[in-house]
Amino acid sequence: MYQLMEELYPICRSITGDGVRETLQILAKHIPLNVYEVPSGTHVFDWVVPKEWNIRDAYIKNAKGEKIVDFQNLNLHVLNYSTPINRKVKLTELKEHLFSLPEHEDWVPHRNSYYREEWGFCLAHRQLKSLMDAEYDVFIDSSLEDGYLTYGEYFLQGEEDNEFLISTHTCHPSLCNDNLSGLVLTTYLAKVLTKMQLRYSYRFLFIPSTIGSITWLGRNEEKLSKIKHGLVVACVGDPGKMHYKKTRRGDAEIDKTVEHVLKHSGQDYGILEFSPYGYDERQYSSPGFNLPMGSLSRTPHGRFPEYHTSADNLDFVKADSLADSYSKYMAVIDVVEHNKKYLNTNPKCEPQLGRRGLYSMFGGKRDANLYELALLWVLNFSDGNFSLLDIAERSGLPFSYINEATSKLAGHGLLTEANLKHA
Amino acid sequence: MYQLMEELYPICRSITGDGVRETLQILAKHIPLNVYEVPSGTHVFDWVVPKEWNIRDAYIKNAKGEKIVDFQNLNLHVLNYSTPINRKVKLTELKEHLFSLPEHEDWVPHRNSYYREEWGFCLAHRQLKSLMDAEYDVFIDSSLEDGYLTYGEYFLQGEEDNEFLISTHTCHPSLCNDNLSGLVLTTYLAKVLTKMQLRYSYRFLFIPSTIGSITWLGRNEEKLSKIKHGLVVACVGDPGKMHYKKTRRGDAEIDKTVEHVLKHSGQDYGILEFSPYGYDERQYSSPGFNLPMGSLSRTPHGRFPEYHTSADNLDFVKADSLADSYSKYMAVIDVVEHNKKYLNTNPKCEPQLGRRGLYSMFGGKRDANLYELALLWVLNFSDGNFSLLDIAERSGLPFSYINEATSKLAGHGLLTEANLKHA
Amino acid sequence: MYQLMEELYPICRSITGDGVRETLQILAKHIPLNVYEVPSGTHVFDWVVPKEWNIRDAYIKNAKGEKIVDFQNLNLHVLNYSTPINRKVKLTELKEHLFSLPEHEDWVPHRNSYYREEWGFCLAHRQLKSLMDAEYDVFIDSSLEDGYLTYGEYFLQGEEDNEFLISTHTCHPSLCNDNLSGLVLTTYLAKVLTKMQLRYSYRFLFIPSTIGSITWLGRNEEKLSKIKHGLVVACVGDPGKMHYKKTRRGDAEIDKTVEHVLKHSGQDYGILEFSPYGYDERQYSSPGFNLPMGSLSRTPHGRFPEYHTSADNLDFVKADSLADSYSKYMAVIDVVEHNKKYLNTNPKCEPQLGRRGLYSMFGGKRDANLYELALLWVLNFSDGNFSLLDIAERSGLPFSYINEATSKLAGHGLLTEANLKHA
Repeated sequence: MYQLMEELYPICRSITGDGVRETLQILAKHIPLNVYEVPSGTHVFDWVVPKEWNIRDAYIKNAKGEKIVDFQNLNLHVLNYSTPINRKVKLTELKEHLFSLPEHEDWVPHRNSYYREEWGFCLAHRQLKSLMDAEYDVFIDSSLEDGYLTYGEYFLQGEEDNEFLISTHTCHPSLCNDNLSGLVLTTYLAKVLTKMQLRYSYRFLFIPSTIGSITWLGRNEEKLSKIKHGLVVACVGDPGKMHYKKTRRGDAEIDKTVEHVLKHSGQDYGILEFSPYGYDERQYSSPGFNLPMGSLSRTPHGRFPEYHTSADNLDFVKADSLADSYSKYMAVIDVVEHNKKYLNTNPKCEPQLGRRGLYSMFGGKRDANLYELALLWVLNFSDGNFSLLDIAERSGLPFSYINEATSKLAGHGLLTEANLKHA
Repeated sequence: MYQLMEELYPICRSITGDGVRETLQILAKHIPLNVYEVPSGTHVFDWVVPKEWNIRDAYIKNAKGEKIVDFQNLNLHVLNYSTPINRKVKLTELKEHLFSLPEHEDWVPHRNSYYREEWGFCLAHRQLKSLMDAEYDVFIDSSLEDGYLTYGEYFLQGEEDNEFLISTHTCHPSLCNDNLSGLVLTTYLAKVLTKMQLRYSYRFLFIPSTIGSITWLGRNEEKLSKIKHGLVVACVGDPGKMHYKKTRRGDAEIDKTVEHVLKHSGQDYGILEFSPYGYDERQYSSPGFNLPMGSLSRTPHGRFPEYHTSADNLDFVKADSLADSYSKYMAVIDVVEHNKKYLNTNPKCEPQLGRRGLYSMFGGKRDANLYELALLWVLNFSDGNFSLLDIAERSGLPFSYINEATSKLAGHGLLTEANLKHA
Repeated sequence: MYQLMEELYPICRSITGDGVRETLQILAKHIPLNVYEVPSGTHVFDWVVPKEWNIRDAYIKNAKGEKIVDFQNLNLHVLNYSTPINRKVKLTELKEHLFSLPEHEDWVPHRNSYYREEWGFCLAHRQLKSLMDAEYDVFIDSSLEDGYLTYGEYFLQGEEDNEFLISTHTCHPSLCNDNLSGLVLTTYLAKVLTKMQLRYSYRFLFIPSTIGSITWLGRNEEKLSKIKHGLVVACVGDPGKMHYKKTRRGDAEIDKTVEHVLKHSGQDYGILEFSPYGYDERQYSSPGFNLPMGSLSRTPHGRFPEYHTSADNLDFVKADSLADSYSKYMAVIDVVEHNKKYLNTNPKCEPQLGRRGLYSMFGGKRDANLYELALLWVLNFSDGNFSLLDIAERSGLPFSYINEATSKLAGHGLLTEANLKHA
């Protein structure tokens, strides 16, 4: 995952344009991605798909003709969605178009102007302070014209048509945690799940933030009722602890699942209540949809100082953290895949487990007695009202123990699957 | 309010009689009060309106003919509802009719004998101990005869017939916090609300405790279904922190409202669960009515040592405390008036607020970003299930922010009022 | 109770056999117990009633012919349900049939082999370590043959057919806390309740653990719907604090009752959530029955080191602890017997209690004012929705105060009993 992130890092992405196309082409080497192009001017709910932005070069030259700010070195230097310019500008005017971070003098901020036409540059505050009162050559070779909004989608059919939606945003230029980490983790999830036998169908979206999810929702309304679980993937590579932001519903199966996985991870973690602020869960959770979409991150957006600055670079994201986040996502998927309700076929008194050799089945395990206890929990609560996750929560045992006990019991005909209706 | 309290302080009130009439006449200079007279002997539920009590003078003279206890100095000296007497009495007999407070030797207690005919005096314990073994001239010029129970009522019609009931008790003689503070605060609420455009109708009751609320309930049963919120006003002038006693229901809108106002007041406060003991909420909350009546006080009744003694005087009540209580009541009314449910007219994805200039609308405000956040909260939760107060609670923002965001959104046609049915 | 326990202590009980018969005969001197005999081989749900086990003698003799382990001294020495044997055995082979407790070198463990045919002895670890490498005479004069499973049952008819089930297990040999304490406490409960006028019918079961409750359930399925409350009695004589293990339902009336009694006991206590592990509540709470059966113990099973060892003897059980447990059971029964719902006959405003002398009724009591407060609580919440226990819980007063206030009010016609439907 880390190598893929390195490959994607230099590309200048935005909510539209060739940077996104190039990014999706690279991902398409890993998974069979469908790429969609939606024309500028398309109406999607209350919004309109904007003009497409592309940029080739940009710099500021001083009086000596030296490039003091250069897009080729760091694409964050240009205000994302900047209009073109090519003229001499006095420092006073120039300053109205410069953005810096006084609290981190060496970092270059990331800024955009998607919905207001403007030109600008971002630079380190230390450099901004040192600018002489002179005339500067300002050059931005960009275009903002009718074109397309580009997004990628990969659908993986499972046994059921019910879907697990995994959505990540593609619109950020050279920023690693937000959100190259999300792009690569999602790609690898898709890659691995492709090889597995799955109960749910999985849909992976690689979309620009806000306008991308709005556009996808607008074009796919008829599919939404199939979405039973969902996660927005962002900021999954920094060294901070995991955080889960709950769905708008607050008690969806995905909420219980992620909380269970984190609680039994042996690591510290945080749970955040839903708020209508953040990433694309804002759109998925709007009242007209109210999809069960949570967001599983490490340090949440805006809470790390490197957020939306040049310091969110390849050093900030750790391969270990990425791998740990990936394993949490896989653990969540594992629970959701197996979380069914069963019926005890022998509901009056306990069945005689000893006779069937079920008590000695876990002899080789470290926690053999907990596995045996799990048998009793599953039998007692398999009355059609409790899912395996409910039983795991009530027993205090990890889902894996409950799931393994269930397999053994079902193997002896002591359980049958109950019809699980999705609410 | 404090001046009005000073004017009312000297009057000898009781559950019936001319003291109450005089009090209501003074209040009627501020608000158009209707005064009702209910004859003694009238049956009201399990009770009977008692005889009317009036008193002109009372004293105890010592052997030298000196008035050592004098009603003219302090009306608490007479046992409230005392029968008349005019004879010489030995100390032993006299002592059976004297009440004092050993734990506060200089304070005169307030006592009554509404439902048992008896005569008596209240005096400082220090004076009681100093009484010589001699004969005393005991004189009480009172009358206890068929007459009337007197109460005041003021009804203010709002847009809706649904009512907010505000009830305060009039039956205490020279006691300030309990409950001249309640009388004057209620009067000023009524005075100010009269000038405002109101959604709810407001009914203000000035009644004697217990028998007064029972009498009013007995005469107005057909009106009770209109009462959607209510507060019993008492002990609102002492320097203690605010306390709210919840309704019998425990989760009425008035409960949520007062708790919200106190939580965001920046001051310490207390919340008390309902108990069937206290002031007239006992009657309003009896199981046959179960009205949503809470009680918003400063230090609750019986919890301050000055309670029902001569020390509950004009010094004990602070103008600042009265003003602070008044502002809390007004804040509660403000929330109740504006607490409606709305429907997002654009429920699928967020509407584009930037295009409408809604993000820059709060530029002048100190908490501009919180006002912007409030826009998102109101939009996301205006699905007909959440009132503005629910949204304020869920967001953690003060109601005023949510209310202002609502106005802005409704002004842009992004919200319409949902039909709010009262439970 | 302690004397009865001394009488029962020497008997060698098991899940079947003459030891159980002898035990039940002794109990039958105290209560009119019905004794049932169920033939070996009888199918009960997933189980089969096992062969009957009886034992007359057993020992291990060393080379000198000395009995070094002797069943006549302590019946725990024989593996319960051991098959017969009578031959010389080398130490190596013998050791495969010996059980000891390395962590308590002087204690003899209790072990059984109900469902696998095997012979064995239990002994102190200190003795095991001292055994010389020699040949031993091993003798067990037991029989394992078709016979009967024996259990006792006593049914006490109350005003209602609805039942309170009290179940205790009879299958342990010389172990006092687990569960002679349960046997004697249950016997004395039955003895005392027989003399009382009761609302509920009470059923007392003296059964072997697991197979006993399964057998009883199998033979009495049609009676189960009558069971409204139940307790499994075990480990009620040790000096530890009381523990209550909740029913599978978690919010049954018996749960609320026991928690109320323990909370107001003035003693420390513990509440345990239901788990499908423990004593016969495992069977009563299987999903096909889900009976409201809790378990009220002192130190729960397995949590005291003496558990299932020779140290669980007559010294370990304290007469004081037994008596205290007994009083808690009686307090629980007292609440359940009186926990009804009432209707205030005068639900609009308070009735005038003073006129009826109800306020002065508790003059002699230490907590007269709390009894008066209880009157108000009962009147206010007797609207058909709250049981007396609910009112006690909500008021924070002990049930006894609420119950006494109820009697007084009902005596004045201010309350009538509501029809209490059992859920």
